[in-house]
Amino acid sequence: MVPEISEGQFTDDTVDANDAALDERMSLTAEFVRSVDESLLDEDNEKTRGLCEELRPADMADLLEQLPEGRRYHLVEVLGPQLAPETLAELAEEVRDEIIEAMPNAQIAEAVAELDTDEAAFVVQDMDDADREEVLAALDLADRLALQASLDYPDESAGRLMQREVFAAPSFSTVGQIIDRLRSGGRLPDLFYEVFVVDPGYKVLGSVPLSRFLKAPRDTRLTDLMADDLVRVPVLMDQEEVAYLFEKYNLISAPVVDESDRLVGMMTVDDVVEVVRTEADEDLLALGGVDREESGLSVPVPKIARSRFIWLAVNLGTAILASFVISFFDATIEQVVALAVLMPIVASMGGNAGTQTLTVAVRNLATRDLTGANTFRVVGRETAVSLINGAAFAVLLGVTAGIWYEAIGGGGPGEGVILGAVLAAAMVVTMLSAGLAGILVPVTLQRFGADPAVSSAVFVTTVTDVVGFFAFLGLAAIFLVG
Amino acid sequence: MVPEISEGQFTDDTVDANDAALDERMSLTAEFVRSVDESLLDEDNEKTRGLCEELRPADMADLLEQLPEGRRYHLVEVLGPQLAPETLAELAEEVRDEIIEAMPNAQIAEAVAELDTDEAAFVVQDMDDADREEVLAALDLADRLALQASLDYPDESAGRLMQREVFAAPSFSTVGQIIDRLRSGGRLPDLFYEVFVVDPGYKVLGSVPLSRFLKAPRDTRLTDLMADDLVRVPVLMDQEEVAYLFEKYNLISAPVVDESDRLVGMMTVDDVVEVVRTEADEDLLALGGVDREESGLSVPVPKIARSRFIWLAVNLGTAILASFVISFFDATIEQVVALAVLMPIVASMGGNAGTQTLTVAVRNLATRDLTGANTFRVVGRETAVSLINGAAFAVLLGVTAGIWYEAIGGGGPGEGVILGAVLAAAMVVTMLSAGLAGILVPVTLQRFGADPAVSSAVFVTTVTDVVGFFAFLGLAAIFLVG
Repeated sequence: MVPEISEGQFTDDTVDANDAALDERMSLTAEFVRSVDESLLDEDNEKTRGLCEELRPADMADLLEQLPEGRRYHLVEVLGPQLAPETLAELAEEVRDEIIEAMPNAQIAEAVAELDTDEAAFVVQDMDDADREEVLAALDLADRLALQASLDYPDESAGRLMQREVFAAPSFSTVGQIIDRLRSGGRLPDLFYEVFVVDPGYKVLGSVPLSRFLKAPRDTRLTDLMADDLVRVPVLMDQEEVAYLFEKYNLISAPVVDESDRLVGMMTVDDVVEVVRTEADEDLLALGGVDREESGLSVPVPKIARSRFIWLAVNLGTAILASFVISFFDATIEQVVALAVLMPIVASMGGNAGTQTLTVAVRNLATRDLTGANTFRVVGRETAVSLINGAAFAVLLGVTAGIWYEAIGGGGPGEGVILGAVLAAAMVVTMLSAGLAGILVPVTLQRFGADPAVSSAVFVTTVTDVVGFFAFLGLAAIFLVG
Repeated sequence: MVPEISEGQFTDDTVDANDAALDERMSLTAEFVRSVDESLLDEDNEKTRGLCEELRPADMADLLEQLPEGRRYHLVEVLGPQLAPETLAELAEEVRDEIIEAMPNAQIAEAVAELDTDEAAFVVQDMDDADREEVLAALDLADRLALQASLDYPDESAGRLMQREVFAAPSFSTVGQIIDRLRSGGRLPDLFYEVFVVDPGYKVLGSVPLSRFLKAPRDTRLTDLMADDLVRVPVLMDQEEVAYLFEKYNLISAPVVDESDRLVGMMTVDDVVEVVRTEADEDLLALGGVDREESGLSVPVPKIARSRFIWLAVNLGTAILASFVISFFDATIEQVVALAVLMPIVASMGGNAGTQTLTVAVRNLATRDLTGANTFRVVGRETAVSLINGAAFAVLLGVTAGIWYEAIGGGGPGEGVILGAVLAAAMVVTMLSAGLAGILVPVTLQRFGADPAVSSAVFVTTVTDVVGFFAFLGLAAIFLVG
């Protein structure tokens, strides 16, 4: 039986006290942001602290991001120790940098000490060297060494994303021994989801999910419980590869191992969700001609303008190339102005068909569904689709343009038929080139180690524009004018 | 100390027996796929079974997807009971449909009985009614009721994605009592990550992560361990909203509740990772003018061609509108053919600038960073960026075009200056319209409940094409020809 409630609806009981600031989709309401902003302007610090008291760190981070630039650090100052350290890890990069820069290093160190190594590395990685040294120096030895080790791994590697706090147990342990050890306290990770089983050299042998562990009698040995087809993450693996493993094998956490297969840390899926989002975003933004660094809403205008200028300049190169093709046929256009009217249609259809194929290719390369084993088949498929749609639009546009040209009385009698035929032929050629470029360009870029999302669109548009204009105007020059 | 190993490298010890089929990025190798394909063609069933013996379900699914269409069900037949039921849940939709259709219903029922409700629903949801009834009838009562209830929830709702198998305990229980209960067996979920604490009416009061639970002495009460700022998922919430909650609050699992806040199931983050990927993909594909249903590599050609045709036809409408604007100025173009040469540059730059803004807007709407509270500020930002880049390219292109026009000796003396000025002015107008359309169109669509990714691109291109051609040719008609 389906309870009769509308989609996304919360009842009063579902909403916690702190959810007064949130709408029914659990986003901060615009009114709440405004009221905090006002209480900051009014210097009513008690009211400000009261409003923020029950916010979860993620919501606190959202609030800081949505406040105008000048007010963000002001809020941090007003909140003082009330601000949860996790908030810093949740912030968008440009906002975090802004706040970290304004914060005294001693206060940053206090916050960092309370975070797991992955979050702590996130917070300090973009600080300038002198400040970071000061923060590191203020940590206790164990925290400092762990954080330093994490920072020594390359950006976007498993080593940087992992937390060093893990729970591992020797293979001869029993369930009862482990529970006793856990209850006795000590340096344990705050949250973990499996017990990693290691040999005396700290080599990972397998793992036992906590839920399976809990169902077993006290005297069960770990080796009898553990799964040995465990997926291990090499410490230098790129985050995109790590995300692929987590997605593919539905992992919740995974051991991170060094070259000797020794356990050095743990990655959990919540970090991976962010990577999946980031990587998918990068493809989306790259296809749209946007750098990821400028996609945040708090990036300053000159930086955005500069970054977009570069992409637009690349596009200008393509456009000028297309213009050059057109200028080649200026005499033809002078005789038959209808060509100037129709030629954007050819280019536009080609560009769109190319973008469709390119988008599918980039997406299937990202999910690794497009592989060496099926490239040939996929190229054949795209060729077939291009020819079908090319033929369909050739008929549609050829007939329409022919009738239109006759109707406006352009050219001599029967020239409408020729114009229609020229447009139809150009359409098929352009659509076919769009389909082929849309699949071959990204596949080739990928094979040469380039990111197929970043540079493909320009190549594909160049091909479709040049082929489109050349085919249409060239055929017209031969059959219509000559 | 960083171990000196190259990125992504596995040592022999890291690679399990079944990883022989996988490359260093844990993708199936093309050679492995080929050798299975060959052993299938050779009818060497023993070899086929041997090759597939150690594959994890996700890799088995990849293998099936990469085989040619005719060979997929053949492999399923050869493997027989060796095929893990989870494989069915891992398959891409169109491949799963193909295999399910070929499989006897009794065998499907056997597989479904072994899966959690969310996976089982996934497998049977697209079967035709008669077949699904037959599969349901073959299940035992409890499984049948659970699966039926799951199917009664709308597609893409939490109710459909959740598993009904949860572990809940009354608030007065102690850690020791729970452990005893877990050890005694019974109908328990295979994997779970927290104990949900419920009142006698099965209302969720809080939850205890297993790792915290394990650290507590036997006589600790659950109420002393539980977090009460638990995020609950309403059973009818849309999967996109659910993914937002998991991402924002870094959740591993969450209780799904009905309208009375009663526990009805559990969602885990591994399902959410897929949703995040799917939703991000949908935006990417929508912006590229592609339906998600046709983005898989196993979709038949006629279906792809039809789906793309629709998008291309919509684009044709835009292109014809732009042509109409051009045809309005045919006399002007006849006099100054250079306009036909330059006009695609204006349209192309406008289209690209519009796409940049649109991409950023769609992305920030998806992550809910673009909200009612900051729309006004973001529109101002886009206006500023458009004006800056519009002015930059106006100068660059105006000067270049002017010099070019004088060089080719077009028009009377000094007309190069006018042409340059016309192009420059058109550039600023077009870029500004691109920036405004790029942000206002998606925001408006979102406000009216439409998907900003799906329809925005067409609107934005229409605006930039029409404004671009109209501004350039219109200004030329006034200042250059008139």
